[in-house]
Amino acid sequence: MESTEQIYGRQGFGQTFSLEAPFGLLIVDFVNGFANPNVLGGGNISQAIARTVSVLVHARALRWPIAYSRVVFSDDEADRNVFGLKIPSIVALKEASFDSAIVDALKPDVGELVVRKTVPSAFFMTPLAPWFTQRGIKTLVVAGCVTSGCVRASVVDAMSFGFKPLVLRDCVGDRALGPHEANLFDMQQKYALVMDSDELLSLPEMRRGKA
Amino acid sequence: MESTEQIYGRQGFGQTFSLEAPFGLLIVDFVNGFANPNVLGGGNISQAIARTVSVLVHARALRWPIAYSRVVFSDDEADRNVFGLKIPSIVALKEASFDSAIVDALKPDVGELVVRKTVPSAFFMTPLAPWFTQRGIKTLVVAGCVTSGCVRASVVDAMSFGFKPLVLRDCVGDRALGPHEANLFDMQQKYALVMDSDELLSLPEMRRGKA
Amino acid sequence: MESTEQIYGRQGFGQTFSLEAPFGLLIVDFVNGFANPNVLGGGNISQAIARTVSVLVHARALRWPIAYSRVVFSDDEADRNVFGLKIPSIVALKEASFDSAIVDALKPDVGELVVRKTVPSAFFMTPLAPWFTQRGIKTLVVAGCVTSGCVRASVVDAMSFGFKPLVLRDCVGDRALGPHEANLFDMQQKYALVMDSDELLSLPEMRRGKA
Amino acid sequence: MESTEQIYGRQGFGQTFSLEAPFGLLIVDFVNGFANPNVLGGGNISQAIARTVSVLVHARALRWPIAYSRVVFSDDEADRNVFGLKIPSIVALKEASFDSAIVDALKPDVGELVVRKTVPSAFFMTPLAPWFTQRGIKTLVVAGCVTSGCVRASVVDAMSFGFKPLVLRDCVGDRALGPHEANLFDMQQKYALVMDSDELLSLPEMRRGKA
Repeated sequence: MESTEQIYGRQGFGQTFSLEAPFGLLIVDFVNGFANPNVLGGGNISQAIARTVSVLVHARALRWPIAYSRVVFSDDEADRNVFGLKIPSIVALKEASFDSAIVDALKPDVGELVVRKTVPSAFFMTPLAPWFTQRGIKTLVVAGCVTSGCVRASVVDAMSFGFKPLVLRDCVGDRALGPHEANLFDMQQKYALVMDSDELLSLPEMRRGKA
Repeated sequence: MESTEQIYGRQGFGQTFSLEAPFGLLIVDFVNGFANPNVLGGGNISQAIARTVSVLVHARALRWPIAYSRVVFSDDEADRNVFGLKIPSIVALKEASFDSAIVDALKPDVGELVVRKTVPSAFFMTPLAPWFTQRGIKTLVVAGCVTSGCVRASVVDAMSFGFKPLVLRDCVGDRALGPHEANLFDMQQKYALVMDSDELLSLPEMRRGKA
Repeated sequence: MESTEQIYGRQGFGQTFSLEAPFGLLIVDFVNGFANPNVLGGGNISQAIARTVSVLVHARALRWPIAYSRVVFSDDEADRNVFGLKIPSIVALKEASFDSAIVDALKPDVGELVVRKTVPSAFFMTPLAPWFTQRGIKTLVVAGCVTSGCVRASVVDAMSFGFKPLVLRDCVGDRALGPHEANLFDMQQKYALVMDSDELLSLPEMRRGKA
Repeated sequence: MESTEQIYGRQGFGQTFSLEAPFGLLIVDFVNGFANPNVLGGGNISQAIARTVSVLVHARALRWPIAYSRVVFSDDEADRNVFGLKIPSIVALKEASFDSAIVDALKPDVGELVVRKTVPSAFFMTPLAPWFTQRGIKTLVVAGCVTSGCVRASVVDAMSFGFKPLVLRDCVGDRALGPHEANLFDMQQKYALVMDSDELLSLPEMRRGKA
């Protein structure tokens, strides 16, 4: 019997594509609540945050446009939605709550964009796509959590909005490893390049300064 | 060690929600090329198509708004995109090609909407959400293929656009069963109700005529 | 020579349509800075705010979903955009600035939605359309300012997202009356019903309670 | 008493901005039905079409990405919407109808994008923004009709999606000159650069080949 990989291979999935400057960096939902196994986190998320630190340093050195997403519901929960029906605990992420704040290790700098959202994709009904479009970005490097949720939804939208998504395997994390791996497979086959951050940082494109 | 289900359960994922009329039906990409294991199909897609027939009959009897999506690239491939770079074979789906035509068993009727797309989600940059919004739809029943691709992307967007997605487990199919199951898990935990079509059709809400 | 009205009439523009429940109310950019002739306001905006008060009371009594928009740029202006290039003074509207706060007379209540935006339309890349869609809204009553800018852009998007827009002539205002009238003409001919608030409030539909 | 121009000037509207390569060209709704005064056209639309011919030649020589929009309703009118309620005659524009075909003088070439729409903006729920984003376009030159309708809606969306809109005054037309002028004023003050095509074509940026 044909394996999943064989089926995908035979039908022509999983091709690679060239990386094109200018590059941008998107960091999805690396907030305290997703770093904490007792809230909405766990699994390999802490390691993914740690691995993202040097990518962020690098992106700033190359003057890439950098954006972050946070899940933020309004204080009165007027914007409670279907996502909040499926996962009631996510509605606790409010503007001032510790759990919705971006982790200290990846604190946004002046001039970097932070978008607030109440759904999985960092692009859905946020100013994110126009912001990268205005800057002419062609390849979007993606870190964040969780791989099987907000990262994957953001990667699908990044591609749909016309950006080439590059997912950093060790900089995306999930509360459980099964869904993490399953979604990396889907993204690699259909939507994005997937590589380790070391591989990205060693590419010649990464030494040219701002494209 | 905690299982994936235990982690999700402990963090409050996978809650149910009430079904609310009016209902709509969305059939994602059930086209000849995805029904054919030698093109882009295989796995349990044929069975899913067969199971969808009676759902469609039912939806028509209840006068639900019904919409379909097809993947259609322009004849000159001017709209070739990143999705087409990852899966070059998908760009062969053109307006007049057999493989992009909706399967005979589910041929759209007059007054039913067909949207054309070049990305995974049936909602992304198509008139689909406005069409259901105009009709006041609150719950959107979803069939189609593939579970791990265009169905899942459409379900995430359905939820994000404000609809309650109800995925029919036996009416969605995939070329490979691993990704099929992994994505049903993700959708059930985070985005949608998942049930069998028999269960849906036996609900009291399904006998009331048009809500 | 044919007048503008004759041309539009001969070509079939400006038809009416039925009002359909459920109704929602959208109040666009009635913030302090647009109420102040020395900032971004003037003209008939103050009168439009005064006229909107009783509409808001009415909408609350009928338990309509009610939403507001504000222009809010981030404190570090990371989201400065083309709109801000054309109108540099608009970038001064920040989260905590007096000029970006909704006027006291129309202060949002708990459970009412406030969307922040950096572009003309209250719908563009904000959660507004999904919020009204989730509530099944079919007709959207629109007040706000300015008629020739954010109101008109929001009305075009309301229609495009599948809602029937109803613009209250005396509840929309502009810093200058020429553009105000020109844009009321465009909206009445192509996108919306336009009527006085007294006419709306005297309609039988307005007495039925929540539709 | 202060004139409209004085009010806008005092409040800081109408600033200019730099043109930035890469450039793209968008031609909105120059179809037979809008060129015909007996259908949906008239006024200065024919002259605008004639003036656009040399811009198109120029854009092709410089290898700019070029896109066109058409209004196209489905044959069974399943997608009839609020726009069609306001302007019933517009629903007659179907895929195969003469009136929905782009005028011969501006026939699209292989590799140029044509988007179909049923609402004013060429960007609304069409693949237009992702297509220009994928190509890194920063400045979008706009021609088309009508100035007070689909052109203006497309220009607002172009700006909102992150592009710098440049409206060619003599390459946009309308069935009536009052709304044409009123909308050029609004766009010039708030959303776009407005210049004559001769001025554009004589800019140094226009001689550099593809940026």
